[in-house]
Amino acid sequence: MKKIAIIMGSDSDLPVAEKAADTLRQHGIPFEVHIFSAHRTPNEARDFALNARVNGFGVIIAAAGKAAHLAGALAANTTLPVIGIPLKSSALDGVDALLSTVQMPSGIPVATVAIDGAVNAALLSMEILAVSDEEIAEKLDALRRAETQKVLAKNAAAEAKFNV
Amino acid sequence: MKKIAIIMGSDSDLPVAEKAADTLRQHGIPFEVHIFSAHRTPNEARDFALNARVNGFGVIIAAAGKAAHLAGALAANTTLPVIGIPLKSSALDGVDALLSTVQMPSGIPVATVAIDGAVNAALLSMEILAVSDEEIAEKLDALRRAETQKVLAKNAAAEAKFNV
Amino acid sequence: MKKIAIIMGSDSDLPVAEKAADTLRQHGIPFEVHIFSAHRTPNEARDFALNARVNGFGVIIAAAGKAAHLAGALAANTTLPVIGIPLKSSALDGVDALLSTVQMPSGIPVATVAIDGAVNAALLSMEILAVSDEEIAEKLDALRRAETQKVLAKNAAAEAKFNV
Amino acid sequence: MKKIAIIMGSDSDLPVAEKAADTLRQHGIPFEVHIFSAHRTPNEARDFALNARVNGFGVIIAAAGKAAHLAGALAANTTLPVIGIPLKSSALDGVDALLSTVQMPSGIPVATVAIDGAVNAALLSMEILAVSDEEIAEKLDALRRAETQKVLAKNAAAEAKFNV
Amino acid sequence: MKKIAIIMGSDSDLPVAEKAADTLRQHGIPFEVHIFSAHRTPNEARDFALNARVNGFGVIIAAAGKAAHLAGALAANTTLPVIGIPLKSSALDGVDALLSTVQMPSGIPVATVAIDGAVNAALLSMEILAVSDEEIAEKLDALRRAETQKVLAKNAAAEAKFNV
Amino acid sequence: MKKIAIIMGSDSDLPVAEKAADTLRQHGIPFEVHIFSAHRTPNEARDFALNARVNGFGVIIAAAGKAAHLAGALAANTTLPVIGIPLKSSALDGVDALLSTVQMPSGIPVATVAIDGAVNAALLSMEILAVSDEEIAEKLDALRRAETQKVLAKNAAAEAKFNV
Amino acid sequence: MKKIAIIMGSDSDLPVAEKAADTLRQHGIPFEVHIFSAHRTPNEARDFALNARVNGFGVIIAAAGKAAHLAGALAANTTLPVIGIPLKSSALDGVDALLSTVQMPSGIPVATVAIDGAVNAALLSMEILAVSDEEIAEKLDALRRAETQKVLAKNAAAEAKFNV
Amino acid sequence: MKKIAIIMGSDSDLPVAEKAADTLRQHGIPFEVHIFSAHRTPNEARDFALNARVNGFGVIIAAAGKAAHLAGALAANTTLPVIGIPLKSSALDGVDALLSTVQMPSGIPVATVAIDGAVNAALLSMEILAVSDEEIAEKLDALRRAETQKVLAKNAAAEAKFNV
Repeated sequence: MKKIAIIMGSDSDLPVAEKAADTLRQHGIPFEVHIFSAHRTPNEARDFALNARVNGFGVIIAAAGKAAHLAGALAANTTLPVIGIPLKSSALDGVDALLSTVQMPSGIPVATVAIDGAVNAALLSMEILAVSDEEIAEKLDALRRAETQKVLAKNAAAEAKFNV
Repeated sequence: MKKIAIIMGSDSDLPVAEKAADTLRQHGIPFEVHIFSAHRTPNEARDFALNARVNGFGVIIAAAGKAAHLAGALAANTTLPVIGIPLKSSALDGVDALLSTVQMPSGIPVATVAIDGAVNAALLSMEILAVSDEEIAEKLDALRRAETQKVLAKNAAAEAKFNV
Repeated sequence: MKKIAIIMGSDSDLPVAEKAADTLRQHGIPFEVHIFSAHRTPNEARDFALNARVNGFGVIIAAAGKAAHLAGALAANTTLPVIGIPLKSSALDGVDALLSTVQMPSGIPVATVAIDGAVNAALLSMEILAVSDEEIAEKLDALRRAETQKVLAKNAAAEAKFNV
Repeated sequence: MKKIAIIMGSDSDLPVAEKAADTLRQHGIPFEVHIFSAHRTPNEARDFALNARVNGFGVIIAAAGKAAHLAGALAANTTLPVIGIPLKSSALDGVDALLSTVQMPSGIPVATVAIDGAVNAALLSMEILAVSDEEIAEKLDALRRAETQKVLAKNAAAEAKFNV
Repeated sequence: MKKIAIIMGSDSDLPVAEKAADTLRQHGIPFEVHIFSAHRTPNEARDFALNARVNGFGVIIAAAGKAAHLAGALAANTTLPVIGIPLKSSALDGVDALLSTVQMPSGIPVATVAIDGAVNAALLSMEILAVSDEEIAEKLDALRRAETQKVLAKNAAAEAKFNV
Repeated sequence: MKKIAIIMGSDSDLPVAEKAADTLRQHGIPFEVHIFSAHRTPNEARDFALNARVNGFGVIIAAAGKAAHLAGALAANTTLPVIGIPLKSSALDGVDALLSTVQMPSGIPVATVAIDGAVNAALLSMEILAVSDEEIAEKLDALRRAETQKVLAKNAAAEAKFNV
Repeated sequence: MKKIAIIMGSDSDLPVAEKAADTLRQHGIPFEVHIFSAHRTPNEARDFALNARVNGFGVIIAAAGKAAHLAGALAANTTLPVIGIPLKSSALDGVDALLSTVQMPSGIPVATVAIDGAVNAALLSMEILAVSDEEIAEKLDALRRAETQKVLAKNAAAEAKFNV
Repeated sequence: MKKIAIIMGSDSDLPVAEKAADTLRQHGIPFEVHIFSAHRTPNEARDFALNARVNGFGVIIAAAGKAAHLAGALAANTTLPVIGIPLKSSALDGVDALLSTVQMPSGIPVATVAIDGAVNAALLSMEILAVSDEEIAEKLDALRRAETQKVLAKNAAAEAKFNV
């Protein structure tokens, strides 16, 4: 099975990025975590992206804040799908990271999820693997059914409380 | 080969969405175009998403403007990767569509590209197929090399003009 | 008397949505509370909306945050008035929910109130019922007079304190 | 049948507000058009609102731009439902009008639609009348079905063009 | 001497509005404080503005949050200068109040100060009185000189600490 | 009678600033127009402000775009009321000028009007003079009555057209 | 004398970037123009930055739009001063480029100028060279004096026209 | 060696501005700290800028919040490079300070860094001195290498924790 890479620009981003790792671990998806900064370790970031497909990765998840160039810098060096997580960690509450991640120029796409949306980044990476892996597709379908059941249970509790 | 679905909410979105179709056609990727509105044809949108995997689709691209719910409404009914293109077509120049598309709640990811970023949506869908299809991966690598050459040629022209 | 439906996308939205319920209860307006997610329980949300008029509802209030599609998803399946409450619960303090709720495309209106404006959502639902129900209209007029008196009392206190 | 009032703050707002009138006329809903400014004719605006219910109105639609106080000023003087249309007519493309209209304080709701959303304002006013008028409810349902058919026809045309 | 009126829309606005009162008291400027809501006590707000000049007021200061119509509603009923203080008290940190206060239509100006800028509102009201009152002008000049001295003293302290 | 100064930062600002001059001329208020840049002619701007009161000015109107420092730079050198007109002339449509003008620090107020609000700046300057000049107060009241009549006439025309 | 590098991400950026070249040419400052994309020619961009100091450059000016990573990508590979020009060329009028350029993480500064501020970028690069080059400092002082004279001449014309 | 000036508008800005001083002290760069307000001590601010080059300064760093005119006011009186640090200290979290600092008119550049970006302001000032000072250039290169090593060490720790 292809691996997922979770890259972040700084270890201060770990509390958010770790949620992507947790999600993948819960579903048995192999992954690696790395700290590469687009600006402080540009060579390591580039080399990782250049070799990611050969090294068995299927998707790269990149989490960064402020002028968040990390996802774009990785995407510039690979044609693997790159998922960008804009982080809230700035005076502007992540608007800067969101625009820096999503407004990529034509030719180099980044699949952007919500600000601090690490769980969705992990799920999106699984959806991508599931395009050619029925087992993961079934896991995702089961997860959706479980999520639906959770909401229905909460609805039942709310109905019992409010609608006599 | 898995097909790409290009869904838009209105035929007024065709000038942008068509660029995704053009990109896929140029690279020989099979695709279908549909007009389904999350609000005016909710049943058709839902049924398309529910059956998309069985019907041979690998990725769904959804283009919508204003309170752009289309990508999310499709994603709610499939675990295929859904790529959202926020459209500029509003008084707010697409900020509304961007936030309506990217700020999805946990559990239902949408892979969002730039405002009016139809070409990148198509390329991202190809990157997703390429995770398990080496031929498409090679096409994407060739495209990158060609894009690099184009920039280098423009650079050569600029250098010749400005740097005597 | 027609009932009011208060729908929210998650039980984490209850602290805000509950204020709408409190307001209706204080004025003796029958209501129901449900938790239906546009994305995690799309079928239940749709079915509720499709049957709401037949089931005796007069107005639907929908509270949701982030890419808040709930009000629009309900409105797509009913011609009852749907009131949207954008919730503050996100990195963007509810701007995303506001735009996702109010910028609806032509044909499917959502009556949007302020971010976290649950009390006003309840009052608006009462105003809607009051168009054909004089008793509720009188309750609303009485409430306005009471609110006016409260402000006048506070003004008297402030005048006594500041304007010797 | 209750009448709909369409109020605007200036005759320069007519091109947008007129679409609300057109929509109501098409469906045989009685309406009146008035130009009352919250700031230049505050007495006329107030008197209209104070007497609107007695004068046979069921809903008031108010269209205004910039620091758009009109809907709120009317709502302060009636418990009829007031629908606010924020207009794009400013340097800020209607963001000012949107926030001035939707962010009403607790106690005085304004049902806000999209920037320049005059058609939806008219449809929302019809939905409000339809709560107690089955004939209008049927008109709205028929309109929805017709809108659905229009999208399906456009979809068929797009499918015929793109999906050989 | 003409009096200054400090009007706010709610007693929850007192902590900010009180700073305007403090500033005026320190300089011996006569003032009155009132709580009048543009929406909950529209008549009292209007009557105050209509009679303010006759009642000996020279300037009206109005503090309000969210869809802050108060300053505009007062300005619509007087040709006295009206100073608007947009309050931060909302999910949007006062951007809504700022735009609702400053973006007034042509014909009805509101002199807007910074979000929560109560001290400056008071100083501006004194500047207005000072146009025809040399004594107040001298007070303002003295205040400026004192403020300059305070900054110079702080500068001296910083220089002593940092610039050995 | 005190004079009004209309200062702008560049002759490209004349089309907007001229409207303030036109308004003052129509009402017989003496005024002067100057082009002083806070950044390109800081000394001239400062000297004008320092001497403005002595030179017979009652109010200074300052129009500037982008990082609009002009109103603040003048206000730093006078205790006359300074009215700031933020100009739309930038990539950001005047949001930069609005915030640069209105968000003044405590101690140095600027009375800010709407983006490109030159007519209101002139009217506000007249309101300030009118605090101690009954003749101008009467002119302003007459203008208000005339504006009201204009709106009523437009209303009559609209009523005649729409409300048969 | 050290050279200035003007780098842009695409030849579509030339109309803005060319103004920087014009400014430098007028003052006899040696410069080079290059088109290097952070995403389409990442290696060329990196290599240029890595060797810029050795190759005789003193300052690098980088102009880019949308998710403008170019200035940051160059700054990551040199300790020469890098000046970033955010370009307006997007649906968001350059807000995305501004935030992507200015909100750099600690350790890698980018000296950001206004949206489309190419002339100021050139002047800033001259100011940097002038720190150790008196001749350029004198040119800049002369330019300032000339700009001051231009404003004064325009002021004289305006005074002659308006202030009889 | 040329000195760096660190100017701030208020002593409340010291906690941020002090980080610039710390950075310079760590690298042995001579600097001075001053508190000069563009609005409360305009003469001192101007005089400092007018004499800065003669007094041995090479770069001026200016930190200010809200309608942050300080950097621009200094830049108007010198052709030394002026670096602006927009401060977060306002209801708008520094957006006002960012736009007031970066959107300077043509002719008077300000090198703007991130909101609260004091460390980068100091590093940028060192980069400017390093254009003609190899020793500082070497210090900066060493700092970059050290920063790279820090990230690599954190990466090693993260890899050891997550990638068994």
